[in-house]
Parts: sequence; C-alpha cells; structure tokens
Amino acid sequence: MRQVAAVGVGMTKFGVSEKTSVEMFAQAALEAIDDAKIKIRDIQALFLGNVFGDFEEGQAVMAPFASSYIGLPHIPAIRFEGACASGAIAVRDAIMWVASGYYDIVIAGGTERCSTMGTSFATRVFGMGSDSYYEWPMGITFPGVFALIAHLYSSKYNIPLPRLKEQMAQVAVKNHDFGSKNQLAHFPKKIKVEDVLGSMMIADPLQLYDCCPFSDGAAAIVFTSYEAARKLTDKPVKVIGFGQGSNGSITHQKDITVIEAREKSAKEAYAMAGITPDDIDICELHDCFTIAEIVATEALGFFPYGEGSKAVEKGLTGPAGKVVVNPSGGLKAKGHPIGATGAAQTYEIVKQLRGECGERQVDGATTGMTDTLGGDLCTVCNIIYQKGW
Amino acid sequence: MRQVAAVGVGMTKFGVSEKTSVEMFAQAALEAIDDAKIKIRDIQALFLGNVFGDFEEGQAVMAPFASSYIGLPHIPAIRFEGACASGAIAVRDAIMWVASGYYDIVIAGGTERCSTMGTSFATRVFGMGSDSYYEWPMGITFPGVFALIAHLYSSKYNIPLPRLKEQMAQVAVKNHDFGSKNQLAHFPKKIKVEDVLGSMMIADPLQLYDCCPFSDGAAAIVFTSYEAARKLTDKPVKVIGFGQGSNGSITHQKDITVIEAREKSAKEAYAMAGITPDDIDICELHDCFTIAEIVATEALGFFPYGEGSKAVEKGLTGPAGKVVVNPSGGLKAKGHPIGATGAAQTYEIVKQLRGECGERQVDGATTGMTDTLGGDLCTVCNIIYQKGW
Repeated sequence: MRQVAAVGVGMTKFGVSEKTSVEMFAQAALEAIDDAKIKIRDIQALFLGNVFGDFEEGQAVMAPFASSYIGLPHIPAIRFEGACASGAIAVRDAIMWVASGYYDIVIAGGTERCSTMGTSFATRVFGMGSDSYYEWPMGITFPGVFALIAHLYSSKYNIPLPRLKEQMAQVAVKNHDFGSKNQLAHFPKKIKVEDVLGSMMIADPLQLYDCCPFSDGAAAIVFTSYEAARKLTDKPVKVIGFGQGSNGSITHQKDITVIEAREKSAKEAYAMAGITPDDIDICELHDCFTIAEIVATEALGFFPYGEGSKAVEKGLTGPAGKVVVNPSGGLKAKGHPIGATGAAQTYEIVKQLRGECGERQVDGATTGMTDTLGGDLCTVCNIIYQKGW
Repeated sequence: MRQVAAVGVGMTKFGVSEKTSVEMFAQAALEAIDDAKIKIRDIQALFLGNVFGDFEEGQAVMAPFASSYIGLPHIPAIRFEGACASGAIAVRDAIMWVASGYYDIVIAGGTERCSTMGTSFATRVFGMGSDSYYEWPMGITFPGVFALIAHLYSSKYNIPLPRLKEQMAQVAVKNHDFGSKNQLAHFPKKIKVEDVLGSMMIADPLQLYDCCPFSDGAAAIVFTSYEAARKLTDKPVKVIGFGQGSNGSITHQKDITVIEAREKSAKEAYAMAGITPDDIDICELHDCFTIAEIVATEALGFFPYGEGSKAVEKGLTGPAGKVVVNPSGGLKAKGHPIGATGAAQTYEIVKQLRGECGERQVDGATTGMTDTLGGDLCTVCNIIYQKGW
C-alpha cells in the first residue's frame, strides 16, 4: 500500500439550507477540486457519506447523482451509511482505494439535510440508528443513552453530578468559543456556563446546551497518492493512520462509559501511524453531547479513564491544552449534518495543519486526528493526518 | 494489488421471511464461513449491502449489528447503498480491501426484507431509487422506465411490439425453467409464454410476468487472498476483474436502451480481466424486467445492439447457449431482495464454477460474470470470476 494525502478540501456553511443534499455536496466538492488545483475530469471515483437522504428528500442512491452534479456522470460513485459516522467511513474507504494503487485521484465526503424533517419526525428517524429490536422499542433515544452515560460516569468515578454538569458545561463553552471564530459554524456564538445550566432540560442531566444541533451541510476532500500530492501542492497533508471499530446494540456493551468500538478503532489507527495519543496535537472528535466529548477523550487515550472531565476543568483540551479538542467548534457549535460530520472533521484537520484557520488556528500543530461515532455507540472511525512538508 | 478469491458462500431461501434482515444475513454469513472452513474469528471486516432497512424495519446502520450477530461485535462493519446494486458494491469494495493487502479474510454480502412494506408503500419507497427532484415528481416508476425502454427498443430496432413481447416472455420462461431447479428460489415454478402474455398488465407493454418479485433474503461470501485460498480449498474461485459505472438521472441518458453506466462498468471489468465478452460462459445479470435482461446482454457485449431480443429467440442465452444467462433463475424466478441481489449473483457464479448446482449446472463453465443495476439506470457493478484450479 502506498501513502495517501489530502490535497484539497471544501465545505459549505453548516446551518439551515435551501439547497438539496446533492447540491450542497456539489458545492463542497467543487471547492475541494479548486483547492486541489486539479481538473474535475481527473477524479476517478466518488465516495459519499449520507444517512437519511431517503427520509429527508425521498432520495436513496445519492452518490451517482452527486457525481453527475459535479460533471462526472460515469465514474463509480458509492454511498456509505454508518449513521453519524457515514462521512468518516466514506473517507476511510476512499483512502484505501488510493492506497491500493487502483485509483490516483478520488473525492470523498458527506452531505445531509436534517432540517427537512422537523423535530418530532427527526426523533423517530434518528432513532433508527439504534437497534430497532432491542433498543428503540424500550423508548431509548440518543439523548437518553448519553444521559445514562453521564449518570454512570458520575457514580463510577465518584464525581458529584453538579460538578460533572459544570464540567460538561465547560465543554460547551470551549466549543462555542472555538465556533465563534468559524464562519462556517451553525452557531458561531460564545456562551457561558450559566447559559448551559440555565437551558431547557432534555434528558436529565443533559440540558439543551449539552446537545449538538442537527444541521444541513456538506464537506468534501480530494485524495491522491502522497507522491502525486507533492506535485500538486507545497502543503500536502499525509494520512498516516486509520481505524474503524464496531459494537452491536448497547445491551452488549459491558460499560457504556467505555466505548469499545472507539478503543478498537483508535488502537488500530495509532498502530498504523506508529504514534501514541501523546503525539496528537489537535483532535476533531464526536461531541454530539458534552459528555460524549469527555468519554471520547478517554477512549482515545488522551486522558486516563475517569480523568476526562477534570481535564476539561484544567483547560487541557482548550486552545493551550495538551491536545486541542474540536478547534472547529465541534458538533456542538459548528453543527452536525450527520452524514457530513466525519468529512467536515477532516476538513478542519487539513485546514489546521496547513495553518489556514485564522483566529482559531492552533499554532504548531503537526499531527491531527478525526473521531466519528455512529449509532448507539456501534460504529467509530478514526483517521490520523500529519503535515507532509 | 494481489489476487483475491471467493472461498465460501452462503444464501438463505429467497421469498417471504419471518426473520429480520440482520438475522437473514447472519444465517447466510455463517453458512459461508462454514463453507470456507475458516473460524468465525478469522474474519477481519464485514461489508454489507442493504437499501431500505430503515423503511422496512426501522433499522439504519445495519452493518455493526450484522457483525455482532455472527459473533464479531468489534470488527469494522460497513453498509453500502447503491439501490438494487448495493450487494454488488459491497462485494466489490470487500475485494479491494483484500487485494490491497490490508485484510486477509473478509465477509461481504447483502440483505433485504422487502415484504414488510406492503405493495403501495413499496412503490413510493422504491421510487426513492430514482432522482427525487426530476424523475419521481413526474410520476415515473421503475416499471414505467423499463416500459419506456421496451417501446424505444421496439421502434429503434424495428421489431414489432407483439414480437418483442413474445421475445420478452421467452426471457421469463427461460429464467423460470432455471429457477424451477433452484431450491432457494422465490418462485421455483415453470411458466409458459402464454402465462406471461396472459398476465395482468403492469406498465404497457410489461405484464406481471415480465416483472421480478420483491423478496426477502440474504447472501454472503468469504474472500481471501488467492494464495491463502489455495490452502483452504481445492476449488478456489478467483476474482479476475471488476468494474463500476454511474449515470445521473435518466434525463441525462442519451438513449435509455443503451445503459452507459453498464458500458463503462463492463469495459473496466473486461480490461482488468484481460478477456472479452466471448470468454464469459455464464452470467448472472439484472433481469428486474424481461426487457432489462435483453438490453443488459447487449451493453455487456454478448450481442450487438438490437440483437439481444433475437438472441433469446434463438436460445443463445439458454442452457446450451453462447452465454448462459441467469442459471440461478435470475431476479425473475429466484427473487429480488434488493440489497442482497448482487451478492446472490456471486453465490450462483461461485457454485456454478465449483460444479455444485445440480440440475441447473452449466457444464464446463470456467468464467462467470455478475451484473447488478441500481436505481433508474444510475449504478452498475460487474465482477468477473474464474475457476482457480
């Protein structure tokens, strides 16, 4: 297998869009192609993450329409679905097709238009990302799962719930601080701990500002071999590792504060990259809820189990932290167009490693990681990138 | 890239099932694993085609549940969706992950439970495989598209419609003849030309027996490197070529009797295999409608354009034909559990090349091809297999 590099990235503004999922993806893809300084016709295949296009717009088999919209009607175009990890899974697969030598230039990404669904219908549809026979009929929703995680985290590590809630609120404050510097973010505004603790209760102990929004948006990345990348750009970003892990329904999880799919995925990615968690400078991870960010930083190995919430208090995931987590604003402030999220994480890491993030730029970052979670803890995908110059 | 082989196959009976999609896939997968004489834990990743699990059973992100059900909760598990070509696309991707050297043993396949939807709802949902903005709102359904193809074929090649209808009926008769010898087929019964011509009109000129059924079912294949395969079995079946092609909405097709996605896909597969259409002994192709089989045999290069329907009359696609088409009974008689169909085609080709098809065995077949069409002509995937001993 040969080395692969990201040579171009594109992303729409996240929020509420009048555009279709295919149109949003085409916009992001054309920006990525332009950024890569390649011709559209150089692209040999398309890899697209999308979760609920059929519910949102009556559109299944979205990938060939996406390739058609960017002027490449005949190239292989594949849709990947792994709930909220769909975009990341598409990116990982695209990387393999280039690594294998079969393709030289491909485009990957994700798109989603959540806003078409309305609130009530969205709860039912997104619930299809849980086990439809053993979880959903019990009435458990995603906020419910993460509320359970928060309660278990509090009791297991002997952190009183009021203190944990404050730590969780600090995750939201940090991510909105970052997001306020990201013009593409859904909610680019700063918030305070009091805003979180004063917001509507969603699933005790999670309040409204502990939860990410659902958004419309798309992101795309052009990948080439690293050798080809060096001819296209003086700032190629290398893929140095990736991993993916699964877990069945949450009834099979030994301890829902320890997401086994993530442990497996991250271990694979670190081994492939030949690095340890200490080598990661920046990480875009899956903060669908504030507690989700805390437990993710533990399974990824940044902090020992039970130390993640304290790390937030100490600022260890902030702008000057040990590892800067979610400099884009994360799902919390940037928004969460579910099928696009994994690709948008790669967008941010590439932009950061190239030093193009303006006010939210993390100085000196050379190694960055993405982390995307799908379903009720059932799919995780990680990708590690490094400055290639 | 290294050579890849299919070393084990499994398939449920197609029809109406009380089992869930995940249960059906697990059944097929365990049969394939048993057939491959490997241990379950040897499998490193799972690739699953499924189209409408969310509409059928409220189940998105099906792949990790499938891996969990076969006792491998933590391996990477990916769902692919390309409408009716989903299973084939999953298989093609699995082959690449082994060809690249990243994985040594993987399982791929597809599953679908169409029967949960009922007739009226099925028409709306399956319509999501067409372009949701420029096709579906015009009221065009899949039978409608293939009816248009039949009319255009008739006028373009100056074949009077009554004669073409008889030729189309002969496709159904042939496939039911084959299907009557396949115990796993949804409709294992023989029919006559008069049965087709006397059946209910669906979309003029397509009558009921010109149309395949929607079915429940699953199929799975274990792939390894060819080198490893030779240690596992004395009958490894080699993958010698694959291709995939796309097309946007049918408004972009120059001539719907010439499916460009298929031309592109087949050309790629033949080039990779280093063979021509004349080298194909057996082909499992996408006969969702009788006219679909006729136009497929042309785009695949078995017969010149305009000669496909006459080839059926002459028996050139029958048991003693130039190329034996759909010896399994095809979608027409075997059934069409949409996400499983591409994988079931590989099941049949592997069984045929190993000489394990009993009454419907095609003697002397050494090279076989699969052909799967998804959406309104928008995705085609082909895979070519060869006897490896």
